[in-house]
Amino acid sequence: MKTIEWVNGKLRIIDQTRLPYETVYIELTDIPDVVESIKSLRIRGAPALGVMAAYGLCIGAAKIDASDKSSFIKQLEKTSAEILASRPTAVNIRWALDHMRTIAAKAKTPRDAVESLLEEAKRMHSQDVAINKRMGKFGADLIPDGATVLTHCNTGSLATADFGTALGVIRSAVAQGKKIQVYATETRPLLQGARLTAWELMQDGIPSTLITDSMAGHFMSKGAITCAIVGADRITANGDTANKIGTYSLAVLAHEHNIPFYIAAPISTIDPTLKTGTSIPIEERKPEEVLGFGGVQTAPKGMRVANPAFDVTPSRYIAAIVTERGILRKPYAQSISKALKPA
Amino acid sequence: MKTIEWVNGKLRIIDQTRLPYETVYIELTDIPDVVESIKSLRIRGAPALGVMAAYGLCIGAAKIDASDKSSFIKQLEKTSAEILASRPTAVNIRWALDHMRTIAAKAKTPRDAVESLLEEAKRMHSQDVAINKRMGKFGADLIPDGATVLTHCNTGSLATADFGTALGVIRSAVAQGKKIQVYATETRPLLQGARLTAWELMQDGIPSTLITDSMAGHFMSKGAITCAIVGADRITANGDTANKIGTYSLAVLAHEHNIPFYIAAPISTIDPTLKTGTSIPIEERKPEEVLGFGGVQTAPKGMRVANPAFDVTPSRYIAAIVTERGILRKPYAQSISKALKPA
Repeated sequence: MKTIEWVNGKLRIIDQTRLPYETVYIELTDIPDVVESIKSLRIRGAPALGVMAAYGLCIGAAKIDASDKSSFIKQLEKTSAEILASRPTAVNIRWALDHMRTIAAKAKTPRDAVESLLEEAKRMHSQDVAINKRMGKFGADLIPDGATVLTHCNTGSLATADFGTALGVIRSAVAQGKKIQVYATETRPLLQGARLTAWELMQDGIPSTLITDSMAGHFMSKGAITCAIVGADRITANGDTANKIGTYSLAVLAHEHNIPFYIAAPISTIDPTLKTGTSIPIEERKPEEVLGFGGVQTAPKGMRVANPAFDVTPSRYIAAIVTERGILRKPYAQSISKALKPA
Repeated sequence: MKTIEWVNGKLRIIDQTRLPYETVYIELTDIPDVVESIKSLRIRGAPALGVMAAYGLCIGAAKIDASDKSSFIKQLEKTSAEILASRPTAVNIRWALDHMRTIAAKAKTPRDAVESLLEEAKRMHSQDVAINKRMGKFGADLIPDGATVLTHCNTGSLATADFGTALGVIRSAVAQGKKIQVYATETRPLLQGARLTAWELMQDGIPSTLITDSMAGHFMSKGAITCAIVGADRITANGDTANKIGTYSLAVLAHEHNIPFYIAAPISTIDPTLKTGTSIPIEERKPEEVLGFGGVQTAPKGMRVANPAFDVTPSRYIAAIVTERGILRKPYAQSISKALKPA
């Protein structure tokens, strides 16, 4: 099972909107396909989106008809902007595209640029797996033997190039021989927890229980949860974290029950240009996602809906942030700034 | 639109599992029908269940073949026990059945008993409407003009004989000319908020927004919510309140944001035999409700699920309890005990 793969000059992804019913691979051959796949969440998860954006730019670059470099770069900028617009909150897309453009800028000819872009996308792909493994190793120290870990949304192999961020930490703890149980929230409206995390946990044979988002507080109050760990879509300079809608509620509930609440995210998720979470733009998605599910309409026609895709958890609710450069603790302004410095 | 009605010697209810797609009335002619309707949530909501249990007992009583009263009472006890077993957490069912049996006990003959039982069920039915109107009048004082009110599950006409408890309070505030907006949580797993509350709010033309349960914290943090009001399935002597799963999470979140969290429930919801909420039995419902919805399976087959129908909110999170005898405040042990005393 590969979330994203470059095979024979083509980009292939699993269509995650079809999981867990069926495992369908789709090939993406142009930029509108790439943009649609991101918008429709056929691929999602911050780290996976970074790799997707990099490969997407390669698809666009290969189609550019330019004899000189400056005309090539100009058209590449346009392609990059199209990909960027697909999901405004995902900082990894921006980060990947910015990075890829610096690679193109170094090339001598358009042909050189196309080659080095693809090389770099492949390097970023394999690096993401390595980053997740390192995060897993650091983060596993936070998960005691015998723990029951609450998680939200999907942060596993399907959200990344492989292995996962928050789910990678859980996997590492299990791999260390610790007895771990998981409570996975279903994560409305798109049910990434019920569809994807449950599927990954079952495949790994990790004892798990699926709950609705509304049940988390109940199980915390019953003493059933040892700690919580989730991913991130964007982290600001002070540690405020944008993540899947519902994360903030879980963080407040964990705080009220003295349960440590952890974030696991690669350094690329950190956006040091934003001081606090109030500056993070929140993507509003279409009402149909809340009005029903899977083709079944549940609410009356015409009902007004709010559908923010993310919320922001202030850093005071976050016990630690797991990165590939180690575990960051409060005060986050310092620990984040230190982690961002080149070694 | 009548949630429950006794027409031409027959019990007729709206099948709420079909709403908002279609308005289907069903006639219930024997005890297995009554039990199935309660178990399958064709009728739900604590006050509606009380009226349903009373009419249900009438259906059973009419079928009893007994020439003497003691044999009649014995068979009535059996019928009562069958109805009671349909939903163990709903104290209104127990309350209604206990009360109805005292009516039967006073009758001289089985025929007299059947007649006075039906009279009493009808009286309880119209009394429930009167109670809701009184609760609405008291509770409306808690809702300021211009308020945006968060509510959970369905507590409207469909949950009661008519008008509603928490939604009745909102209706009363609107009827007083106050400008009120509502945020309604969809209320997984059975989506009573999305299906029933949204439907009632639209029918009344009250400006409303449907959100997933996981969004409540986000909108509280944005300052979008003035206060929250929900119903109750059981209230213990100290004010601890069992209500639809997710209520506890909302109460904790409201507390963290200094948002008053209110309960609206008739006196019959109070169970003074239980000192605190830890003694309330929590009904565990079938896993299919969490694994999918409306025939669409969302989680992988075989995934383990938890599905408590209720949670318990400790009274310290509750700013006030609205009853038909007035607004109860802390300390609840005193205010509840006072409210329970016969006038």
